[in-house]
Amino acid sequence: MMSNMDNAIAAFRKALGSDNVVVSQDEIERYERATFHCENTIPAVVRPASTAEVQHCLRIANAFRVPLYPISTGLNTGYGSAVPTAPGCVVLELKRLDRILEYNAELGYVRVEPGVTQQQLYDYLQEQDAPFWLDVTGGSPRHSLIGNIAERGFGHTAYSDHFAQIGGFQVVLPDGDLLTTGFGQYDNAKATGVYRWGLGPHYDGLFTQSNLGVIVQATIWLMPKPEYAQFFSCRIERDEDLPALIELLRPLRLDGTVRSAMHIGNDYKMISAIQGYPWEEAQGTTPLPAEVLRAKVKAWDCGPWNVSGALYGTRATVADARRRVRRQLRGKVKRLQFLDQRRLRVVERLAKPYQLLTGVNLPEVMTLLKPVFGMTQGVPSMGMLPSNYWRKKEFPEASADLSPERDNCGVLWLAPVAPTSGAHTAAIWAIVKATMQSHGFEPSVSITLLSERTIDCVVNLSYDRDISGEDQRAMACHDDMLEQLCSAGYYPYRLGIQALGKMPPKTEAYENFFRALRGALDPNRILAPGRYLP
Amino acid sequence: MMSNMDNAIAAFRKALGSDNVVVSQDEIERYERATFHCENTIPAVVRPASTAEVQHCLRIANAFRVPLYPISTGLNTGYGSAVPTAPGCVVLELKRLDRILEYNAELGYVRVEPGVTQQQLYDYLQEQDAPFWLDVTGGSPRHSLIGNIAERGFGHTAYSDHFAQIGGFQVVLPDGDLLTTGFGQYDNAKATGVYRWGLGPHYDGLFTQSNLGVIVQATIWLMPKPEYAQFFSCRIERDEDLPALIELLRPLRLDGTVRSAMHIGNDYKMISAIQGYPWEEAQGTTPLPAEVLRAKVKAWDCGPWNVSGALYGTRATVADARRRVRRQLRGKVKRLQFLDQRRLRVVERLAKPYQLLTGVNLPEVMTLLKPVFGMTQGVPSMGMLPSNYWRKKEFPEASADLSPERDNCGVLWLAPVAPTSGAHTAAIWAIVKATMQSHGFEPSVSITLLSERTIDCVVNLSYDRDISGEDQRAMACHDDMLEQLCSAGYYPYRLGIQALGKMPPKTEAYENFFRALRGALDPNRILAPGRYLP
Repeated sequence: MMSNMDNAIAAFRKALGSDNVVVSQDEIERYERATFHCENTIPAVVRPASTAEVQHCLRIANAFRVPLYPISTGLNTGYGSAVPTAPGCVVLELKRLDRILEYNAELGYVRVEPGVTQQQLYDYLQEQDAPFWLDVTGGSPRHSLIGNIAERGFGHTAYSDHFAQIGGFQVVLPDGDLLTTGFGQYDNAKATGVYRWGLGPHYDGLFTQSNLGVIVQATIWLMPKPEYAQFFSCRIERDEDLPALIELLRPLRLDGTVRSAMHIGNDYKMISAIQGYPWEEAQGTTPLPAEVLRAKVKAWDCGPWNVSGALYGTRATVADARRRVRRQLRGKVKRLQFLDQRRLRVVERLAKPYQLLTGVNLPEVMTLLKPVFGMTQGVPSMGMLPSNYWRKKEFPEASADLSPERDNCGVLWLAPVAPTSGAHTAAIWAIVKATMQSHGFEPSVSITLLSERTIDCVVNLSYDRDISGEDQRAMACHDDMLEQLCSAGYYPYRLGIQALGKMPPKTEAYENFFRALRGALDPNRILAPGRYLP
Repeated sequence: MMSNMDNAIAAFRKALGSDNVVVSQDEIERYERATFHCENTIPAVVRPASTAEVQHCLRIANAFRVPLYPISTGLNTGYGSAVPTAPGCVVLELKRLDRILEYNAELGYVRVEPGVTQQQLYDYLQEQDAPFWLDVTGGSPRHSLIGNIAERGFGHTAYSDHFAQIGGFQVVLPDGDLLTTGFGQYDNAKATGVYRWGLGPHYDGLFTQSNLGVIVQATIWLMPKPEYAQFFSCRIERDEDLPALIELLRPLRLDGTVRSAMHIGNDYKMISAIQGYPWEEAQGTTPLPAEVLRAKVKAWDCGPWNVSGALYGTRATVADARRRVRRQLRGKVKRLQFLDQRRLRVVERLAKPYQLLTGVNLPEVMTLLKPVFGMTQGVPSMGMLPSNYWRKKEFPEASADLSPERDNCGVLWLAPVAPTSGAHTAAIWAIVKATMQSHGFEPSVSITLLSERTIDCVVNLSYDRDISGEDQRAMACHDDMLEQLCSAGYYPYRLGIQALGKMPPKTEAYENFFRALRGALDPNRILAPGRYLP
């Protein structure tokens, strides 16, 4: 007798064609790999090419009670990549839905499918000579825009909070029904996609960080390209000045002087973005010895905390914002520098002679500076991808072909949120530093002034999965840190599959509320069981 | 035998005290009155004083299957005031929950209950000498902040889209459970109220324009008071230039040159804000004869369309924005004027002599200008309240004690949304003008550039309820206009109780989706049946 799964697979084949139903263990294996140890196995991967096919897949899943786990491009590195949250899920890969369906050059938005990548949309906007920027993340240029929006990721420009810049979704519900949010319940509504609240309850957010539906389209608002933009950077020289730095930056972000998300990378973060673990200097030991860290900080000319951000506007308003940034930070930070496109080219030309004069490896520093600069102007970059290889024996060149999952990189991300204040930042940093050091990992961290009122602290736990026992040691560190951060009231803004089952208890009212919703929308629990909701 | 209602009322009395359960027809009558004909009767009004009492009320309602209809201050003028969407609802009045629970002077937010009014919070911020502005509407200074947020209302500053500036809600569910959104499902979460997305599905929006819960607290973000602000205004001289005007204003709003919502009032709107219907000049006839309109336009020195907005920033950035506004509008609009606090005082002083010289009634114009100017700086005003009396025989002085409901003012609001484009604006205006004129009403309209990409056209249908037959004639006009606007794809951003049952059919998927949600959360349908959802 055929099992439910066999029947479902037969039905998927009929619906999508055999080529688009993957059951070969060889091919499936790469979907089961994250950048940490995972056990959930995948019986099949199905690859619909259209919204109608996605609906069909959901109906098949219901008919045969087979759970489906949607992924876009599956590049959720550090959070579980393409691996489902439960064993036995058929992966619903949405990569083939890769169309840019609409571009509105007057109002500045695009409507895209889940397979559309950062690079693809960037290239498209370049071709159109669009007066708009896409907001990009430091992740792979090949990652899905919708995948990132669904996890409420963030980037570097004034449109950095990705979910905040959404005009609406089209969503396939667990039963296969298709919803268009905004005014989409009505025929021919002109403001769908531009007026996000629509009419009646606003419900876009239900489909982010959830298993209540599959987003098959998103309308993404684009940032009008400003007349002029300046990148700026500075640093502090002592770790203990971090709280004061946050207090200094807060009003600049709150009043809109700085409209970009500001990022503050620590020394470990900066170094791992430029080079691999200095095995030789560290004489083969981990974690990184203090004196090697000091040497690297000097060689790469960075501080314990390094700020970057951008100013946007006309030449006059940028000049004014620059004055205000200067006035606010003067004497309290080091190396406050402003850089525009023209000056960047000059610096590039002078990098070599500068190195000869000062010993600072400016050409290498430029390999980090250029992508970060570009990201504040909406240019996707593969420049940050090598940092996933920090603890590997070989540090690769930047390339979009890098696959940390394939190459056994160990990467665990954990990203607690707090109100923008020095005290909260200090509390988080104390926990992160102590925990990671006690477990023998480098506390590589970047703090982002994510919105006018919040910081997000992205902790990057890097290791080498090829070393026996490291998977377990890294996860123990992650779990310890997660537990301490939550106890102190600093909850992550998103959860990787490594964290989903380890969160503290939720209120009974919340559990009841979402149990009722999920029960009503997905009585067979076929959509991504365990993804944020049971 | 006692009915369910009698039992419920007995239980409410026990829970709240008899004083807080109103059953006297005399007192109830004013809750049954809107600014148009309503038939839904109210058996009782209950007045809880705390969240626990609200929860208790919901439990009583479930126990006795008695529907409850929440209102805050009940000043939803033009949309149904305090009147429930169904007959036989007990009104749950939240006025007594009137505490400002928290003010954060570093991050700029307050946490308030539903009874807190615009004026109350404004006064509070003044007392605190807060460096923040509240965004206010042109409605009564006594209206509830939460009531307006729940309907996704809008105001005049850079924080004009009220629901966009919310950090989170506390909500009583139909079963009496209490939810805190954001990170509120977790204990001690520090970022609740500042990071609105929280963790897991984002669901704040479910409780706006809905009957899925009762908002009992909201965290409202406040706009940092800018170093400098300028009000600006201009107008066009020909009605047919409206589409071109919208096209001119769009880029200023999209790129952030103008961060305030811009409002464009037409001649009828301007005149009715300053004076009552000119019965004498019109020789007692309605609608307003064209030649009387022309005379008033001249007397009040306005155009067919009149723009107002504000620039915020430092002196330097405001100066730059002003240059850009000038460059964009020069030669295409008339009377482009910029005004700050100092200049306003000068104009006030010169108003009288100016009138003597030009015949323009500047002192009266100032009665409109001053409140509009103030609203762009977060000052609530009763200055717009008299306009509700447009068609009455007496036009009152501005006062917070005015009650259009009590005084038999006829007011119906209808507010369709469209993408910001000249063509869409022209299409809406053509429908509104033709319909209202054919039904014998003045097409009083203001168009708001509500967000970077959308306009909202607020249509104000004013009449005198004391004239026999006018209720019916006005509603016929409203219904005709609603039907035509929806057919053309221009759906309202909110619905008064007069419109809820008259909308075109929704998609089956949407109906199923919300039927499932509502069934799961409110199986007895005791919360506001018919309010946006069945």
